Amino acid sequence: MTTPLAARIAREYGTPCAVIDMDRVERNIARIQAACEAAGLANRPHIKTHKSPVLAKMQIAAGAKGITCQKLGEAEIMADAGIDDILISYNLIGEEKMARLAALQAKAHMTVAADNSTVIAGLPQAAAASGRPLSVVVECDTGRKRAGVETPAEAVTLAREIAASRGLTFAGFMLYPTETGWVEAQKFLDEALAGVRAHGLDAAMVSTGGTPNLKNLGKLKGGTEHRFGTYIYNDRMQVAAGVATWDDCALHIYSTVVSRAAPERGILDAGSKTLTSDSGGLEGHGLILEHPEARIARFAEEHGFLDLSRSNTRPNVGDVVRIVPNHVCVVVNMMDEVVMVRGDEITGALKVAARGKLR
Amino acid sequence: MTTPLAARIAREYGTPCAVIDMDRVERNIARIQAACEAAGLANRPHIKTHKSPVLAKMQIAAGAKGITCQKLGEAEIMADAGIDDILISYNLIGEEKMARLAALQAKAHMTVAADNSTVIAGLPQAAAASGRPLSVVVECDTGRKRAGVETPAEAVTLAREIAASRGLTFAGFMLYPTETGWVEAQKFLDEALAGVRAHGLDAAMVSTGGTPNLKNLGKLKGGTEHRFGTYIYNDRMQVAAGVATWDDCALHIYSTVVSRAAPERGILDAGSKTLTSDSGGLEGHGLILEHPEARIARFAEEHGFLDLSRSNTRPNVGDVVRIVPNHVCVVVNMMDEVVMVRGDEITGALKVAARGKLR
Repeated sequence: MTTPLAARIAREYGTPCAVIDMDRVERNIARIQAACEAAGLANRPHIKTHKSPVLAKMQIAAGAKGITCQKLGEAEIMADAGIDDILISYNLIGEEKMARLAALQAKAHMTVAADNSTVIAGLPQAAAASGRPLSVVVECDTGRKRAGVETPAEAVTLAREIAASRGLTFAGFMLYPTETGWVEAQKFLDEALAGVRAHGLDAAMVSTGGTPNLKNLGKLKGGTEHRFGTYIYNDRMQVAAGVATWDDCALHIYSTVVSRAAPERGILDAGSKTLTSDSGGLEGHGLILEHPEARIARFAEEHGFLDLSRSNTRPNVGDVVRIVPNHVCVVVNMMDEVVMVRGDEITGALKVAARGKLR
Repeated sequence: MTTPLAARIAREYGTPCAVIDMDRVERNIARIQAACEAAGLANRPHIKTHKSPVLAKMQIAAGAKGITCQKLGEAEIMADAGIDDILISYNLIGEEKMARLAALQAKAHMTVAADNSTVIAGLPQAAAASGRPLSVVVECDTGRKRAGVETPAEAVTLAREIAASRGLTFAGFMLYPTETGWVEAQKFLDEALAGVRAHGLDAAMVSTGGTPNLKNLGKLKGGTEHRFGTYIYNDRMQVAAGVATWDDCALHIYSTVVSRAAPERGILDAGSKTLTSDSGGLEGHGLILEHPEARIARFAEEHGFLDLSRSNTRPNVGDVVRIVPNHVCVVVNMMDEVVMVRGDEITGALKVAARGKLR
């Protein structure tokens, strides 16, 4: 079964095609803004999910204080579009990056993260070149085992290094607690805050992150802002995490069934170069709205392998189906554009302007 | 440890950065061309790996008969660059795609694949619009369980449907045997060839595929050409398959170690948005040349998680390392450009012109 809208998407754009429902996008933006305000937190959405200055500006118009980027290339796109409060939540290293960071500082108020002395030692070069002080937060790891110092004592040491560096301002702490790790995060933050205060420093910004942490919003005493990313579109992972419903999923991949080589199998024209191999830890690679019992079992680069053995109704070759991806952030990054709809009306294409900005 | 070349790549382009060694690229092109000629087969390289008309033309200059594409968008880039013999090894469906296929036919000799009657029923629209006959091969599945008819009888039925369709020419069969499935492929092909001949049809083209099938090249009696893709760059999967050495791996991802939050852990600036989550079935996500005992254990979008517990020498923050990816085809598709080197000299950037052509 192909919906009339899916047939039009296929006819006008072809498949596979990413389609975003702008009513849902706006609803998601409003809901998270309201949640931040209710929790007394500033909202600093992470643009890695949508990579579009148009959508970033919608988030800011709804009340967001600024944005978060992971890469300089993303921040450059956003600053060029006029966004002026940008956190790059990442360790930046090297002359090439310092020159770009300096250029960015001329356009926007930049804050960057650091979790080690090598990073901090490089940043004054950017500050000096721009002639403006650079805000730096210390990234703290309270259990995720990614980047970030693992002890409050190290956090305090780095805060002091930042404060002692020419052109750098210690701005505060950045955390990304696991969904079950907010007690540990509180303990870490309390010690780190006490530590910097004992040295006469103030943490004006305490930033937490993660859409699945919606359920923990407001729990951290001393938190000042939260970085939500995925919420603008949502995906199968957010539904699994209990922070979104299927109706909150604003992005669908429209894909054509191109082969039914055997009764219990099928092939989609969306493979790992569209949906990516990122399973998000879930079984199967996406929910097909028209065939929820069908399983996207695996991928070749341009083939999605459908297991139809549990399906009562099975698609025909030529059917266009709608897929909620497991992890929408990496899927959007595969696209030059997404198609916008409102209800059943196609309203145009939106460029994924910061797609592929890997440095 | 950072090599002098890696330091220059980081300074001039930044990391993460895909770097191709053009001496190795040329050697790989020559080696596979020679292997095809020794086996009496035409060479029809699959451009999905490099997505560059510059490299496709190098393959043709070395003796390739034509090229293979998986998507219309890839073929459009290649035809616009003047390549005139293109196989799209994929079921194409829908008005939008038929209009584009017709436009392509005006520029190049096109062959497309089909494994079902729905696809075949649509193709005459493209042939009629272009005013030229369209060559169609029947895709046969001899064990991979992807697209392709599963029995010789079905293959013969579809061959007859193609031959009976206005504007279509039955061109032959396309197979993609598994590495251990060439006896089955021979049996399938023999029956299919006998079947079409009994109906007065001829299979001028019998195309096999896959770089790992280098070890089977020439085994299929009746084969006329082979589609190699990955061989131009090679990767950890090809080394694991025994068809390439580390010295044949022509593409490396240069990545900076941005964090060493704990002694046995590290973070690379290449995550799933650079190296992709496609493991290719291997343990770990790539070989780090400078630290072969280090394990790229998992990814966040922009973080590669390094497990250094088995490493004697461990990288410092700021080190630039070189990574052989598990599956190079999907990695190249994340990049707008790759940087070319010869030995230790940077010779320029090459656009990945057909990147992201997902339809």
